[in-house]
Amino acid sequence: MSAQTPTPAMAAQTQMPESEVLRLLHTRGSVRKYTNDPIPQSWVESMLAAVQHAPTSNNIQAYSIVVVRNQDTKEELARLAGNQQHIIDCPVFFAICADLSRPALACEMHGTTLANHTTEQYLVATVDAALVGMSLELAGDSLGLGSVMIGGMRNHPLEVAKLLNLPPRCYVVFGMCMGFPQSAPPSKPRQPMGAVVHYEKYDTDVHARELAAYDSQLAEHYGAQGRETPEQSWTKVTAEKFSQPARPNLRAQLKTLGFPME
Amino acid sequence: MSAQTPTPAMAAQTQMPESEVLRLLHTRGSVRKYTNDPIPQSWVESMLAAVQHAPTSNNIQAYSIVVVRNQDTKEELARLAGNQQHIIDCPVFFAICADLSRPALACEMHGTTLANHTTEQYLVATVDAALVGMSLELAGDSLGLGSVMIGGMRNHPLEVAKLLNLPPRCYVVFGMCMGFPQSAPPSKPRQPMGAVVHYEKYDTDVHARELAAYDSQLAEHYGAQGRETPEQSWTKVTAEKFSQPARPNLRAQLKTLGFPME
Repeated sequence: MSAQTPTPAMAAQTQMPESEVLRLLHTRGSVRKYTNDPIPQSWVESMLAAVQHAPTSNNIQAYSIVVVRNQDTKEELARLAGNQQHIIDCPVFFAICADLSRPALACEMHGTTLANHTTEQYLVATVDAALVGMSLELAGDSLGLGSVMIGGMRNHPLEVAKLLNLPPRCYVVFGMCMGFPQSAPPSKPRQPMGAVVHYEKYDTDVHARELAAYDSQLAEHYGAQGRETPEQSWTKVTAEKFSQPARPNLRAQLKTLGFPME
Repeated sequence: MSAQTPTPAMAAQTQMPESEVLRLLHTRGSVRKYTNDPIPQSWVESMLAAVQHAPTSNNIQAYSIVVVRNQDTKEELARLAGNQQHIIDCPVFFAICADLSRPALACEMHGTTLANHTTEQYLVATVDAALVGMSLELAGDSLGLGSVMIGGMRNHPLEVAKLLNLPPRCYVVFGMCMGFPQSAPPSKPRQPMGAVVHYEKYDTDVHARELAAYDSQLAEHYGAQGRETPEQSWTKVTAEKFSQPARPNLRAQLKTLGFPME
């Protein structure tokens, strides 16, 4: 290709990249307070039709979404998630499920049996669900909605599955509260890029230095908000929180739900 | 609030929703053929800075990204993934890792030990990685790039970890080839929304009907492309492929890498 005929790609590369997606990511944050405005059903359907195009391993589409607006159901889900008020308050709650029940049915239709016992199958379904969930968050953000993902759905996976009438081989990976935000979400600093991104090979030498820098940065951030800083050190909070085994019964419960993870 | 003063949200709801994100999702597809144009480093950094704002459970940020441009490394990764030529051809390959090594270091810095043995911790890290990976795909799409996710990184997780110098408690959930697409990706129909989306409670009654409809739709789609249709039935392909246990050694290998999943 001659230097006289730059491709569109080459021309574009002389500019700093800008896009709605980049802007939405930079300004996003978890939104837990919503106005009283409902989300129209046409919007819900438009978002869901779009996120169905998220990537999926081998086109298996091993996820499902349960859309919950019923107030009683949201109250029960909020209780199961450890009394999270925003689940009650949001106009629409999405339960993002890893779901191998359709592949299982396909096997049944053709005289085979789904090999759902492996860790790989559990992983494929869980990742499919996460890809769709992330797409849904950005779809909502792009329409001026705000959301927060709810890992608390894994506090009591059996009860959540029963409440939502999930079939075998299906569990809620996380929930998502969505609505029109009362205010713009706060933007929290993330770890320095040098701690997270590596070039060619992973370099563990940077970690201690970068994490100390992050602790200082977060302390400044919380200080500027007038909040106490010592307990907001990322390394300290993490050292306390993640030295306790979280949800130690999850594996047994997932097995009951049809994910033996052998 | 009076009927005379509609909120911006109420005004917006009279229109059908449109956004870059919705459009990108509808038109996306896996891209495996790239032009020879490189991706500028400034673009890579812009995308990675943006995706660092993806949601993360409790701000744990339990993921890392290794950016690979080195041709030898890509060739070795392609081989480990089952000879996927697009890994060799793409200008930039991203290894999207679940990574508990920074939380582990934080614990060490404060005299505790990371409880990395639970399935929950494995799940949190894996989902964090997937959320960032999905964000990266959309960030690339928004700049006119194209990509394909590579689950084949899990064919040989130990060898991949060694090649990329990953620390303990870190594994590649999937890879991503990215570059300027040679042509627009094909758009493949997904399952009918009624099979995937449920309202208030999950309704298993719809599955058999919807999956039969999907088989017909895919047959039409492939027929229009002049491809043979019988083996393209989703239920048949799925019944064959997923009745075999995929990557049966994954659990043992993940344990070796620091994810016991107890």
